[in-house]
Amino acid sequence: MSLTNATPYEAARAARLSSRRLAVLPAQARNEALKAVHAALSDAKDEILAANERDLAAATKAAEGGQLSQSLVKRLDLTKKGKYEDMLQGILDVINLEDPIGKVDVRTLLDDGLILERKSSPIGVLLIIFEARPEVIANIASLAIKSANAAILKGGKESTESFKAISTVISKALASTAVPNDCLQLVTTRDTIEPLLQLDQYIDLVIPRGGNELVRKVKQSTTIPVLGHADGLCTIYLRADCPVDMATKLLVDAKTSYPAACNSVETLLVDEDALETVLPAVAGDLLSKGVSLRCDAQSKAALSSALDKHHAVLLQDATEADFKTEFLDLVLAIKTVPKTANAETSADLAIAHINEYSSHHTDAILTSSKEIAERFQEGVDSASVFWNTSTRMADGQRFGFGTEVGISTNKIHARGPVGLEGLTIYRWRLSGNGQASTDYGAGGKKWKHEKLPVGEEERMARTEEEWEMLKKFRVEKA
Amino acid sequence: MSLTNATPYEAARAARLSSRRLAVLPAQARNEALKAVHAALSDAKDEILAANERDLAAATKAAEGGQLSQSLVKRLDLTKKGKYEDMLQGILDVINLEDPIGKVDVRTLLDDGLILERKSSPIGVLLIIFEARPEVIANIASLAIKSANAAILKGGKESTESFKAISTVISKALASTAVPNDCLQLVTTRDTIEPLLQLDQYIDLVIPRGGNELVRKVKQSTTIPVLGHADGLCTIYLRADCPVDMATKLLVDAKTSYPAACNSVETLLVDEDALETVLPAVAGDLLSKGVSLRCDAQSKAALSSALDKHHAVLLQDATEADFKTEFLDLVLAIKTVPKTANAETSADLAIAHINEYSSHHTDAILTSSKEIAERFQEGVDSASVFWNTSTRMADGQRFGFGTEVGISTNKIHARGPVGLEGLTIYRWRLSGNGQASTDYGAGGKKWKHEKLPVGEEERMARTEEEWEMLKKFRVEKA
Repeated sequence: MSLTNATPYEAARAARLSSRRLAVLPAQARNEALKAVHAALSDAKDEILAANERDLAAATKAAEGGQLSQSLVKRLDLTKKGKYEDMLQGILDVINLEDPIGKVDVRTLLDDGLILERKSSPIGVLLIIFEARPEVIANIASLAIKSANAAILKGGKESTESFKAISTVISKALASTAVPNDCLQLVTTRDTIEPLLQLDQYIDLVIPRGGNELVRKVKQSTTIPVLGHADGLCTIYLRADCPVDMATKLLVDAKTSYPAACNSVETLLVDEDALETVLPAVAGDLLSKGVSLRCDAQSKAALSSALDKHHAVLLQDATEADFKTEFLDLVLAIKTVPKTANAETSADLAIAHINEYSSHHTDAILTSSKEIAERFQEGVDSASVFWNTSTRMADGQRFGFGTEVGISTNKIHARGPVGLEGLTIYRWRLSGNGQASTDYGAGGKKWKHEKLPVGEEERMARTEEEWEMLKKFRVEKA
Repeated sequence: MSLTNATPYEAARAARLSSRRLAVLPAQARNEALKAVHAALSDAKDEILAANERDLAAATKAAEGGQLSQSLVKRLDLTKKGKYEDMLQGILDVINLEDPIGKVDVRTLLDDGLILERKSSPIGVLLIIFEARPEVIANIASLAIKSANAAILKGGKESTESFKAISTVISKALASTAVPNDCLQLVTTRDTIEPLLQLDQYIDLVIPRGGNELVRKVKQSTTIPVLGHADGLCTIYLRADCPVDMATKLLVDAKTSYPAACNSVETLLVDEDALETVLPAVAGDLLSKGVSLRCDAQSKAALSSALDKHHAVLLQDATEADFKTEFLDLVLAIKTVPKTANAETSADLAIAHINEYSSHHTDAILTSSKEIAERFQEGVDSASVFWNTSTRMADGQRFGFGTEVGISTNKIHARGPVGLEGLTIYRWRLSGNGQASTDYGAGGKKWKHEKLPVGEEERMARTEEEWEMLKKFRVEKA
């Protein structure tokens, strides 16, 4: 990180060159570097929080003047109890994750003495652009080092002081480790994003961590692949056979536990025959928790007669635009799915609505029917498709990834919550002893294309005889 | 394919809507459709070849006038012996490939009754833009149907007649199958590419099959991800300890077996101490086969004294530009890697050259040293890194994929030869019985995050006791 004042070209080139040295470091060296970063950030807590206070003071002033949102000021705040410790814990968690690099997941004998392997590798150089949250610097820097990727980090201008303080500490810490200092390039000036986005010869992947405006702008300005999600318009489809308690609990969770999160529910689809049975209790609970319900005519009519007067007066009318809106607030749009001749057809109407309106992030069905749930989970084309659980479950930590790079609505590479694996690709290694392409084919040798075991597959029962023995052994032990 | 005259918007929207119907079809229905396409193309051979003759006549005329290259006319020609049969065989091969859709490769118990699965899925809608070769239409259409992706196909103007004939036949054949007709959209007019590249709400992936100018232009015109390779500047690094016979055989294969292919070698790096031992025989053989050798000063001096007069006079001087050129012809640039104090350091110089100059497609090392080969295969950042075999091996059919979508130099999603797997992504399916996100975390329930077996992992020895028993059994049987 010696090149803070470097030009974008110099920074990107330095990151690329050093990325190859990082790529061949063993896992232990990368983990040692992360430990050094963790220790240094622990020691420097006071000076970093002092820098954060300066950012906060400026932002608070700007918010009072109406130039900044209060929620941005909140995201900027690193002094909130537990937040700094969470940041530090995040680094320790990353150290403890399995090494994502160097795993062989395909091994094929092409011919005698000619073995093909697919081996996981770092992507190379990441460009990470983030907005206010300063702790993301430490999170992303750890993920980059763990996955042996060089990273160019560009912070938002509101967090400049915090960003500089944290990056100076990380930079000093890395100096005593095997990780080349140039592997993390920290860029603070605003006019560097555009030129960086042009450097596709040095940068392999752009990860914008911010609102959908940022993501869209980045996508339009670069030929480098972009990993991220623009919107989180999540839907829950409620069937009449869902127990009222479950429906209420999950909708309250999905709507109110963190309304500004991208995995919060924004649209509720309700089967016509659930309007008078399940929906009223759900709606009553949501209204009690301060949620505004924007209902289509049919659901409003049903709720108006089913709810108490003081609740019924709160119901609002939905417009078409409400079903295309990511409210990120205590607002929920409700739409009725008309009753049809059979259960599958109404489910198909809900699925079609979701495929057309949702942002393909996370959508859930609440039903007692395994068959209808299966139809939903196969038919909905979203990164996460859930049954009888909350859309808020779409999260790297909850999925067991330890931490997440972000949530992707891309249809290639990585979809849904992205963990360390999303920062890897692979190389094809082919090792032979003189085989040429012209040895094979018409009149020549034949390919063997024999699948060889990888990793733990060695421990797999290969024949039916082995498998029978293994099953028998398990039954005996049980 | 009823929408040949549709607007780009209508075509893309129709493809998107029908893609969801295709996505839920079982493998058998997709294979039946491929069989119907195969039968129809077999029956229509005469009319398709007649259409191809019309394209050929126009192209031949244009080539005579200098507006088209002879190699394009050659690529256009479907009447060449065996070419039509190869196209038909390609469809049968695709039918016989394993279904890439619906495979679960991650299964995690997040908590009791809360199971997460990662399941392979089609990407959605592909836009495939290709230049002259008409048989690619049939290949790509089969790959799309097999992987349950809708596809919009845009052919080059030189192959319009062939394209229309083939597409009409495919369209008629699909009409009698379960695959929705709209899943394949065929676009012939030229001005449709630009508007299609803007439809990121309907199109998920663009695959340009053509020269690097096409790929670059497409990348610059769209925010949709692009899968492809722009260049194939492949390198072979020759060490002094490589047997002369092997070096000669592999360089002749890599340079002369198909010079216009992207996996042919373009640069030869030679260790200084191989200049007078291994290189002369290699160079002599290449010169005899008509290859122009563009040598740096040191290799030229060595070869000039080692080779026969009639060969030595053919040697040319390399310029810096030659090491950045994909010749696609019988031309090879030769550069000397200076002798250093130890073997690793000279290998590192070669690795650094490749990482800087190669197009990260395929690079190979020829050496008897396993250690140096390992250093090379880990240090070179290319899609394919080979040891003691030809760069020409980088090919989906040779890798055992049956067929290939193309070769990717992307650093995300799919790298190197791309088979059917490159046309898939996954969904996260989470199924519970009422678990909410707020049930977990501080003061609440703990995550289990227990890995469950997927596919054949059920047959894996889970405990050391099982594994010992399995090993013993294998020894006894052997």
